[in-house]
Amino acid sequence: MEPNHTKSSDSYAADIYSIREAQVRIKPFAQQTPVLTSDTLDSIAGRKLYFKCECFQKGGAFKFRGACNAIFSLDDDQAIKGVVTHSSGNHAAALSLAAKLRGIPAYIVIPKDAPKCKVANVKRYGGRVIFSEPSMQSREDTANKVLQDTGAVLIPSSNDGRIISGQGTISLEFLEQASDIDTLIVPISGGGMISGVALAAKAINPAIRIFAAEPMGANDAFQSKSNGRITKLSEVNTIADGLRAFLGDLTWPIVRDLVDDVIVVDDKEIIQAMKLCYEILKIAVEPSGAIGLAAVLSDGFRKNPVYSECNHIGIVLSGGNVDLGVLWNSFDK
Amino acid sequence: MEPNHTKSSDSYAADIYSIREAQVRIKPFAQQTPVLTSDTLDSIAGRKLYFKCECFQKGGAFKFRGACNAIFSLDDDQAIKGVVTHSSGNHAAALSLAAKLRGIPAYIVIPKDAPKCKVANVKRYGGRVIFSEPSMQSREDTANKVLQDTGAVLIPSSNDGRIISGQGTISLEFLEQASDIDTLIVPISGGGMISGVALAAKAINPAIRIFAAEPMGANDAFQSKSNGRITKLSEVNTIADGLRAFLGDLTWPIVRDLVDDVIVVDDKEIIQAMKLCYEILKIAVEPSGAIGLAAVLSDGFRKNPVYSECNHIGIVLSGGNVDLGVLWNSFDK
Repeated sequence: MEPNHTKSSDSYAADIYSIREAQVRIKPFAQQTPVLTSDTLDSIAGRKLYFKCECFQKGGAFKFRGACNAIFSLDDDQAIKGVVTHSSGNHAAALSLAAKLRGIPAYIVIPKDAPKCKVANVKRYGGRVIFSEPSMQSREDTANKVLQDTGAVLIPSSNDGRIISGQGTISLEFLEQASDIDTLIVPISGGGMISGVALAAKAINPAIRIFAAEPMGANDAFQSKSNGRITKLSEVNTIADGLRAFLGDLTWPIVRDLVDDVIVVDDKEIIQAMKLCYEILKIAVEPSGAIGLAAVLSDGFRKNPVYSECNHIGIVLSGGNVDLGVLWNSFDK
Repeated sequence: MEPNHTKSSDSYAADIYSIREAQVRIKPFAQQTPVLTSDTLDSIAGRKLYFKCECFQKGGAFKFRGACNAIFSLDDDQAIKGVVTHSSGNHAAALSLAAKLRGIPAYIVIPKDAPKCKVANVKRYGGRVIFSEPSMQSREDTANKVLQDTGAVLIPSSNDGRIISGQGTISLEFLEQASDIDTLIVPISGGGMISGVALAAKAINPAIRIFAAEPMGANDAFQSKSNGRITKLSEVNTIADGLRAFLGDLTWPIVRDLVDDVIVVDDKEIIQAMKLCYEILKIAVEPSGAIGLAAVLSDGFRKNPVYSECNHIGIVLSGGNVDLGVLWNSFDK
C-alpha cells in the first residue's frame, strides 16, 4: 500500500505520481541502464554495493531523463517554438538530444569561454548554440533575449518539476533491479536528481535512507542543511565540474525534508573513486559521476556509527562525459 | 529443432552440449554480462551493433568463463592438488579467481619480465606466482616442474575443450539478449573464445556469420586460414597484448571450419575503437577488447560487398584490463 501523498504533492514540485508518469513518457526514448556489482568493491567498502550506470544513459548522463520528460510534457503549440537553457554541461547536451527526438529546436546559451568539448557535444545532438559572456548575468540575459525572440520555453537544469520527475525515474528502475537496497547515495548539485530519487524512493519504501554526495569545494547543500536555509557560495572549486550549481527554491524543500545527510568528500577522494570505477568496474565515469563511491569509501561515512546499518547501498554513477585527451595522446608515440 | 551434432562432437573438442553444461556449471559464479547499444555508434557503423560487455565479467575479461568451467569440471581428487598455467595475462587472473572460489591452489608461472600489474592481478585473486625466465621454453619447463612437484592439472588458456566450452557460453547469453543478431565478431588469439562462440552460435542458428578480428602484427589466424594449415609467426608486434598467442591443434579445426572470415586491423584502428568505447559507450576496454569494433569500422569490412548483409552485428568486448597510469598521473598536478 502506498502512503498518502496528498500533502507532498501539494508541497513539492513533483511526487511519485508525476514520476511514474515521467517513466511512461520517457520509456520509448531513454535507456533502462544496467546495475553492476563487484565483489572486489564490496570487500573494499565492507558493504554490498549496487551501481546504477547512468553513464550509459543517452547523451552519457542521467540528465536525459529529465530533459526528455520536460520536452515531451510540452503541448504541441508550446513545443513547436522550441526550448532554451543556459546550462552548458550534460543538461544542454541532453536537452538538445531530446529536442531533436521531438523535432523541435533547442537554443543553448553557452558562455564563450566554455570548453570546446561541451560546445561540440551540444552541436553533435543538434542544439543551436548561442554564445554569451562568461558571467551568469550575461547568460541569463542572453537566455531571456532568446525567449523573447523565439517564444521558446525555458527548461532549467534542476529547479523544475518536470526535470525532478524525470530524474526520479532512476529510483523506480533501481529499486526494481536491486530490491534489497536500504540506502541510496546520489551526487548533489542543483538538487534535481536527488529530489526525484528521494521522492520516488521514500514513496516506495519510507525506511530507505537517502544521502547526498557533495564535493568539499562546492558544499552549498551541506551548508544549506546545516543552516536550515538555502546557502549559496561566493566561489566554488572542485574537479567535479557537474556539481558546481546551487540548490533552488523547488529542490531545497525536498532536500531539506527527505535527504538524510550530505556526505562531503575532497577532490582526491573523487579521483580515487573514479580510478576504481575504471579499474574495477571497467566504466568510464566523470568525476561528478564517481562521487557516490567516494562518499561510501570516505572516513566520514565508514567511521560514523550511524551509518553502520547501511548494508545494501545503491550508488548512482551519474555520468561519463569526461575529456580523456591525455590518455589518447599517450598512444601517439 | 537443433541440428544433428554427432559429427561435430566427434570431431571437435567441444559442442553445443558441452557448452550448455558449462553454462549450468558456471552460472553460480560468472556474471551474466549486459549488452549495450548506441545510436551514435550505429550511425557511425551504418549498422545495428550490440556490444557484449565481457569487460564486466569477473576478473575483468571473458577468460573467467573458461577457467571456471575447467576448474569446476575437475573431480575432487584431481582438484585438491590444484591447477597450473603459464599464461600471465587475463587467463592467469581468471584461473586464480576460479581456483579461489573452489578453494584449491592455482600455480601461475610468470616470466620474470612480465608487467607488474599482471603479477599484482594474479596475486590479488590468490594465485601462487612462480617466476620463470622470459623464454617460452623456460615457461613450459617451469610449468612442467610444478606439475611434477604438485600433481596439479595443467589448464591451458585456449587449446582445451573445457576452456572452449566455457567461452561458448557467451553465445548462449548473447543470442538470447539480442535475438536478431545475424553476425558475430570476436577477437582471435589462441582461438578458445571464437571456437566456443562459433560452435554454440552455429548450433543455434546455422546461418549466423562468425568473423574473427585480428591485429595486423599478429595475424597468424588470417595466415592459417589462407594457407589451410596452422601457421605460426616468428614474431608478433601489436598493442593488443591479449591477442599475441597462436591457434592450437584443438582450436584450429573449429576456426578452419566455422569462422567465415578473419578481419585484420592495424593498431591505429584498435586505438580509435578503444577511444569510441570510452567516449561513446563509456566503457573501459583494453586494446584487445576493442578490436571487434575496429573490425566493423575498418575499410576492409565496410567496403566489402560480401558483408553488406551483415546488419545486426554482435561484438564481444572481451576485456577491460588496461594500465591507465598516464591518466591518473595527469590528475597529480
